[in-house]
Amino acid sequence: MSKTNAGNFFEDFTVGEVIEHATPRTITEGDRALYGALYPTRFAIPSSAEFAESVGLRPAPVEELIAFHVAFGKTVPDVSLNAVANLGYAECRFHRPVVPGDTLHTSSEVIGLKQNSNGKTGVVYVRSTATNQRGEVALDWCRWVMVHKRDTEAPAPETVVPDLAPVVAAEDLVVPEGLDFSSYDFTAAGEPHRFDDYEVGEKIDHVDGVTFTDAEHMLATRLWQNTAKVHFNTEARPDGNRLIYGGHVISTARALSFNGLANAQLIAAINGGSHVAPAFAGDTVYAWSEVLDKAETTAPGVAALRLRLVATKGRDESMTLKVTEDDKQKYAAGVLLDLDYWAFIPR
Amino acid sequence: MSKTNAGNFFEDFTVGEVIEHATPRTITEGDRALYGALYPTRFAIPSSAEFAESVGLRPAPVEELIAFHVAFGKTVPDVSLNAVANLGYAECRFHRPVVPGDTLHTSSEVIGLKQNSNGKTGVVYVRSTATNQRGEVALDWCRWVMVHKRDTEAPAPETVVPDLAPVVAAEDLVVPEGLDFSSYDFTAAGEPHRFDDYEVGEKIDHVDGVTFTDAEHMLATRLWQNTAKVHFNTEARPDGNRLIYGGHVISTARALSFNGLANAQLIAAINGGSHVAPAFAGDTVYAWSEVLDKAETTAPGVAALRLRLVATKGRDESMTLKVTEDDKQKYAAGVLLDLDYWAFIPR
Amino acid sequence: MSKTNAGNFFEDFTVGEVIEHATPRTITEGDRALYGALYPTRFAIPSSAEFAESVGLRPAPVEELIAFHVAFGKTVPDVSLNAVANLGYAECRFHRPVVPGDTLHTSSEVIGLKQNSNGKTGVVYVRSTATNQRGEVALDWCRWVMVHKRDTEAPAPETVVPDLAPVVAAEDLVVPEGLDFSSYDFTAAGEPHRFDDYEVGEKIDHVDGVTFTDAEHMLATRLWQNTAKVHFNTEARPDGNRLIYGGHVISTARALSFNGLANAQLIAAINGGSHVAPAFAGDTVYAWSEVLDKAETTAPGVAALRLRLVATKGRDESMTLKVTEDDKQKYAAGVLLDLDYWAFIPR
Repeated sequence: MSKTNAGNFFEDFTVGEVIEHATPRTITEGDRALYGALYPTRFAIPSSAEFAESVGLRPAPVEELIAFHVAFGKTVPDVSLNAVANLGYAECRFHRPVVPGDTLHTSSEVIGLKQNSNGKTGVVYVRSTATNQRGEVALDWCRWVMVHKRDTEAPAPETVVPDLAPVVAAEDLVVPEGLDFSSYDFTAAGEPHRFDDYEVGEKIDHVDGVTFTDAEHMLATRLWQNTAKVHFNTEARPDGNRLIYGGHVISTARALSFNGLANAQLIAAINGGSHVAPAFAGDTVYAWSEVLDKAETTAPGVAALRLRLVATKGRDESMTLKVTEDDKQKYAAGVLLDLDYWAFIPR
Repeated sequence: MSKTNAGNFFEDFTVGEVIEHATPRTITEGDRALYGALYPTRFAIPSSAEFAESVGLRPAPVEELIAFHVAFGKTVPDVSLNAVANLGYAECRFHRPVVPGDTLHTSSEVIGLKQNSNGKTGVVYVRSTATNQRGEVALDWCRWVMVHKRDTEAPAPETVVPDLAPVVAAEDLVVPEGLDFSSYDFTAAGEPHRFDDYEVGEKIDHVDGVTFTDAEHMLATRLWQNTAKVHFNTEARPDGNRLIYGGHVISTARALSFNGLANAQLIAAINGGSHVAPAFAGDTVYAWSEVLDKAETTAPGVAALRLRLVATKGRDESMTLKVTEDDKQKYAAGVLLDLDYWAFIPR
Repeated sequence: MSKTNAGNFFEDFTVGEVIEHATPRTITEGDRALYGALYPTRFAIPSSAEFAESVGLRPAPVEELIAFHVAFGKTVPDVSLNAVANLGYAECRFHRPVVPGDTLHTSSEVIGLKQNSNGKTGVVYVRSTATNQRGEVALDWCRWVMVHKRDTEAPAPETVVPDLAPVVAAEDLVVPEGLDFSSYDFTAAGEPHRFDDYEVGEKIDHVDGVTFTDAEHMLATRLWQNTAKVHFNTEARPDGNRLIYGGHVISTARALSFNGLANAQLIAAINGGSHVAPAFAGDTVYAWSEVLDKAETTAPGVAALRLRLVATKGRDESMTLKVTEDDKQKYAAGVLLDLDYWAFIPR
């Protein structure tokens, strides 16, 4: 009863407050194997200890999204258990690779609050930081969620809306220490395409599709210790469907993007993202990407692509993101995810 | 044909006989990761190497139920392949943590036999002991199962019914060597509730529910090398359903109990348990707990709670275990599991 | 678009050409655990570090089929992405155990080409070799697949059909270095049957059955980084079914064969195999074996059985492989797999 976690409601948050989230989590080779079973990923660095060492990374890091999902999952019981909607992400940077044996701990600072005009809900902005067992920052990110009020009569807090960057500046990307792409093996990595082969505005249809099952998305979501009820319980939604964790769609789309972006191996930052529509078991998900920007780094052979990753329900060979309806730009039917990120790629 | 294992029938057992079960099994980080994917567990000790070390345990043990399921699975081909029903457990104690790299081997002594009056079946009582690669006892437990006779004409053995304790005495609980809760981090563990906050008779509704799938319970049951046909084969039961291994329900309920019992981190003993009703894919399982007893230990900061863990199909906010029907106490509709165990918790 | 892999078509292959396949893959304890969750395997050597050491293998190798599936998966994007059918295997030998930490890399030499008379397809023969991070051969095998032509007008290449051995000669089997079965523990391994207990022509019904699910075969197939669309995408076939990867059937049948062949622990070679019929979720798969041949080795206590492993949809207690129809030998209804392999077993 009173001993169970009811989660925080809108009026429980205060700007400036720092929440230490529970359950530190040690990453293991088991997580790497499960990630490979859950998503069709073939990026050579997390797949092969030898390949990783050949580009200066030893031991081989796990995929950045493993770290993201674990670190994100920790925030759910405190930040979004009573969320109406996950509204957005910004300023997510990966500061150093996560390797098996690392233990992640997440804390969040409340950086903004804005009650909605209906008086029933409000938007909470947090900056979350995941650190490893040495206290080093592994990744940080901002997100904002719409949260229920417990008591609609509770007074509205002063409105504070943080000023979030629409995109992480290229010069703020953190190249993993030691990363050296100067003798990169394109054959082992699976594709010949390097930085210079991609042009801003280019779109890539990743071709392959995956049909979701309930067992798989629940295995994934539990692995990240994400406890949101709607993912696990057919009695939690009126339609009896288990809503698929948005991160499951991100990881699926990212893995599918190997086909055409095999060398965009390391995620450096996530600039923003929208879960445009919900996904359920039985949906067949495809992905396409658009090159949004390009940047150099000072690390040997290492450049960066800014990419839009779009997941769709059903394949859209036209790769249409938005359509005009009633003089407004709206996402095209079938779009599930619109993610904007930076990845490192060999020059 | 004759080379396959037909299992033992009632008349094959002799009181005092010791059966060495096959297939020693090495526990790995892969098991820990899979357990976290299969069950919504967030207990900080098995989740985090750093947290475990902070309470004196290094390396981090895996959950006690991993050891239990693996050790139990070994007994199935010899003890319960021809079982009609798994009647009960008693006197299960965890003697030392199991860590990755440990190899478990199980043997069972037949401690009782009682032919049923119908002459077709009998009850076999065994005490099973799982040892690690150093020959140290990891856990032991008693169980009794109703087993078919191969030949109903076979003479009944002398009836021997062992005297089993209804509950493991608090002074017989084995605190893991080195366990020290005196600087326990309640924030990292996820809840502030300590030993003194729980009262005998208190009930806790764990709130969350999980809807089962066939893929998940089969993955789990195979992982424990449990070979009972009914869990895997839709042709093994007239109704075409795969019966979910009772241990899957135990692990699900135990993981759900984190919400309200996050600090009851280590299972010390299982006093008894009943699988009240079968569970199948599509069932949504909830859990509630009742505090049955409390005890001190001599280890620094370490106390113990005796808990009843009840799994139900559908949520029962009234937390009713039994109802009176026709002057008899019967389990309430929806109850799947009634498990009685001891857990260590910080004072 | 042009950046995605369209795979090779028949006219893209040249006899003598060597293809280096992408994505080296490091094997971990996570793979071992997942294999045990996906297949009902209980062979003592891969299950127990102590058992493996007791027969001279340290660390414990993973199952040979893990190495096979991973090595095979690498060839799919280059060899069989445009395949009509996987026609056969031959001359597969396991040269040394694969252990966690080993990284596998696969290359294939085109050893034969034969355009079909319809001018639309052709048969490609390749010999594939998987090496570890020290450049040592882990396994090699031949397979032949029927592949589409991109351009039916492309000229037919000179027909080259390699001379493949119908069976790997016993004297060419490679006993793992250090393997010593002279103090083999039959109790721990689970069955008393040794080399001398098996007779050529003997058939063994493995009794147990497993009903397939989509989630499980997709988890497995992804784990091997096998990208063939038909396994994952309900939109890839007119019937809306996801075709189960043939290797999933092989691993299931091999694991079921424990019951009767528990001591045939190590696969030494695969002489040939046919995927006789497709398998889908909902099928219940059983297995039976036939002893085809027996051979001695010079290693202490180590002998070899040549076995036919047959997987069937539904149990066939008569163990019928082929029936005569219209004067032709045809596979009996229900046969899914006919695999011919050598396994090491204690004398």
